[in-house]
Amino acid sequence: MKSFIEPSSVAIVGVPRRTGRGSFNILENMLKMGFRGRVYPVNPNAEEIMGIKAYPTVKEIPEPVDLAVLMIPRASVPGVLQECGQKQIRAVIVVSDGFAEADEEGKRLQEEVKRISLSYGIRVLGPNSLGVVNNFRRFSTTFLPVPPVTAPVALVSQSGGFFAGFSEFVAGKGIDLGNMCDIDFADALEYLEQDPEIRVIALHMEAVGDGRRFLEVARRVGRKKPVLVLKTGITGYGAEAAAGHTGSLTGSDAVFEAVCRAAGLIRVRNVDELGDFVKAFLHLPPFIGDRLAILTPTGGGAVMALDYMGELGFVPAQLSPKTTASLLPFWPPWSKPSNPVDMMSPGVMHGYKNVYKAALATLIQDPNVDAVLCIAGAPTLKTIKEVIKDQMKPVVTWALGRWEEVYSRMNEVNYFAVYPTPQRALKALAAVKEFTRGCRGSPG
Amino acid sequence: MKSFIEPSSVAIVGVPRRTGRGSFNILENMLKMGFRGRVYPVNPNAEEIMGIKAYPTVKEIPEPVDLAVLMIPRASVPGVLQECGQKQIRAVIVVSDGFAEADEEGKRLQEEVKRISLSYGIRVLGPNSLGVVNNFRRFSTTFLPVPPVTAPVALVSQSGGFFAGFSEFVAGKGIDLGNMCDIDFADALEYLEQDPEIRVIALHMEAVGDGRRFLEVARRVGRKKPVLVLKTGITGYGAEAAAGHTGSLTGSDAVFEAVCRAAGLIRVRNVDELGDFVKAFLHLPPFIGDRLAILTPTGGGAVMALDYMGELGFVPAQLSPKTTASLLPFWPPWSKPSNPVDMMSPGVMHGYKNVYKAALATLIQDPNVDAVLCIAGAPTLKTIKEVIKDQMKPVVTWALGRWEEVYSRMNEVNYFAVYPTPQRALKALAAVKEFTRGCRGSPG
Repeated sequence: MKSFIEPSSVAIVGVPRRTGRGSFNILENMLKMGFRGRVYPVNPNAEEIMGIKAYPTVKEIPEPVDLAVLMIPRASVPGVLQECGQKQIRAVIVVSDGFAEADEEGKRLQEEVKRISLSYGIRVLGPNSLGVVNNFRRFSTTFLPVPPVTAPVALVSQSGGFFAGFSEFVAGKGIDLGNMCDIDFADALEYLEQDPEIRVIALHMEAVGDGRRFLEVARRVGRKKPVLVLKTGITGYGAEAAAGHTGSLTGSDAVFEAVCRAAGLIRVRNVDELGDFVKAFLHLPPFIGDRLAILTPTGGGAVMALDYMGELGFVPAQLSPKTTASLLPFWPPWSKPSNPVDMMSPGVMHGYKNVYKAALATLIQDPNVDAVLCIAGAPTLKTIKEVIKDQMKPVVTWALGRWEEVYSRMNEVNYFAVYPTPQRALKALAAVKEFTRGCRGSPG
Repeated sequence: MKSFIEPSSVAIVGVPRRTGRGSFNILENMLKMGFRGRVYPVNPNAEEIMGIKAYPTVKEIPEPVDLAVLMIPRASVPGVLQECGQKQIRAVIVVSDGFAEADEEGKRLQEEVKRISLSYGIRVLGPNSLGVVNNFRRFSTTFLPVPPVTAPVALVSQSGGFFAGFSEFVAGKGIDLGNMCDIDFADALEYLEQDPEIRVIALHMEAVGDGRRFLEVARRVGRKKPVLVLKTGITGYGAEAAAGHTGSLTGSDAVFEAVCRAAGLIRVRNVDELGDFVKAFLHLPPFIGDRLAILTPTGGGAVMALDYMGELGFVPAQLSPKTTASLLPFWPPWSKPSNPVDMMSPGVMHGYKNVYKAALATLIQDPNVDAVLCIAGAPTLKTIKEVIKDQMKPVVTWALGRWEEVYSRMNEVNYFAVYPTPQRALKALAAVKEFTRGCRGSPG
């Protein structure tokens, strides 16, 4: 896998001479990202492309090549693959489509690709794959622009379109398995298991491939790093379409659920949840307890959060006498601090940010509190980030107000575990709790 | 209700002399918004506040007053309310807290407020209410900054904190019912029913109040305008807390579900969904059919969308021969256009935006297609907006990529029905379909 994700030298076969918007030029995209390895465009009709010497075939390239990327008509793929074999190239990405996902001729061609790669010992990614993204090496084989985010998160997908990101989640490394004729989820997981740059692994999965090997590898990797799985093609319409998309059968949902449980994989149900959980695993410390404190300027907001607490395995924390005593001076005479900690009235009397800050710092120190949900408007996010910095207690935040403003505030403080709803905040928090529990081997 | 939402003259009792950040000064907030009516600050210790003459009590104000806003210690509320009655003020907002939500003394005070208001014929909003927001008149009684959005959406809430908005949804008009000692959901609905500036009504509801009257009013209003209901305080922890928050019992969830069905209310399950549905009702035309076409650059994305279609009552549209014929020239020889319309390969060959535009225009015209789901990266949003402009077929979009970028692109085109996941896009689309069906009286 190393040759795919961090190659020193890359041949790109089928580079067009066109560049710019709408040209889908892999070479141009790779250079724009700032890739520092050697690049060899292959095009029999050009002497040079974008100022780089071009070669008529891979065999003419005078130096060793780690990886070849093929974006040529499907009928030409087997021949070029053979040339790659003769040139001792051991890693090939087939971007071209029209294989098992298309028609009978495509299925036949994919079989030929398999046969040739086996006979030369070539590992193949694809066909019908946008290949890889590695923002840590400024390397990508996609022809689509990819956000240059170096988050320690890898996305292994069966659709390269998702390299653009989901909602709030953009991967630092991406692998598009496409039709998965050779390299599959197990291969990708084995690589990422050892990758020190990656802390969280996200899988977008239509088909499992070799189920036994996947289970074996996932069971091992899933205890070291959180592995999130978004399985699609699960219902009637979706399952039919998945067969058409990557030419593979998706398997039964119930079987898949059992596989996830057995392997310690974290199954997510939709794109939002994938982004939410990634954010939680990036920004929250591991923890186990279920006693939750809520800090809020709106009683109504706390009620909403409490609606979801029980089903997500949390109980309201009983504040310690020390916490109650230290907050009491801020409270109006007709009430006293309790959980949820509604700080609106105290805030109006004693300064909003003051009270928020003091209350959050106190809750984090409270031994009766395992985790905190903050409810806050966008202007308070900075205050929260300051207080939770370097603290080892998990704090998630539900940001009220327009998410547009929330994003701009989060940008200022380099992001943390902020969510647009209490349900999503608590669900993500619960995922970290469950993963921690699984790793420590205590009963679920 | 008119005196509350579009008053000509307002007395604010308990205006502090402090202004600026953290002062929670209602007068300052009101002036900042640009309210053009007459405003009378009431404060026995000041001659003037912010350059406006202040009065020691409401009785000294020399002109008629439509609305009084009280933000004073709870013990002073009954006395001032009496003075309001003597001054012939018929609408009073009690912002002060510490009433039925607090303790026994608070319950007693709330009863006194009720008694006094009845004896003088005063309508009371609150207590424990931030009052109203009316961005169409640049009017607000809240002490919190409120986004000045004039969307034709009203939020009736039991928590003024939500005037800041949920995620993507900010109301043009807001009413915080607080402890609901007098004005309740039915009153608010009756006003909004007749309000030509409001097309969509959102309710954040902890307690129903007078259930019979609510049902009667909602049944009528819910057939004219979409009424979305986010009911909170529905589970054990949440229901207990709601009693503490606004001093009211929330009732059984099953009963409430039945009430919604009977009244034609659209129940939403969380904050995301509330924003999603509001967006759909603002931007989509009414429609009935269930044949959905999907336009996508990613086969994997289409599979995800298809997973949710069945449960949301959609079936894949069979493209008409005319549509297929008109798209065929763009397609590679080994495939032909079908639904989902995967336009990546055609886009690479014939220009991405060209193909997207042509395909979307064709799908909108297809008589076999009732609604369209577009899957698109942020840069394509502008193209979609151009094509769907003035079209009477509902089109929802799932935007791939970082939502930060999506927002900035949506801003450019003044927003439309764009969602961060296929599930949310289709759920919102289905809500419009169901509402249309309900209005036309055809069987569900």
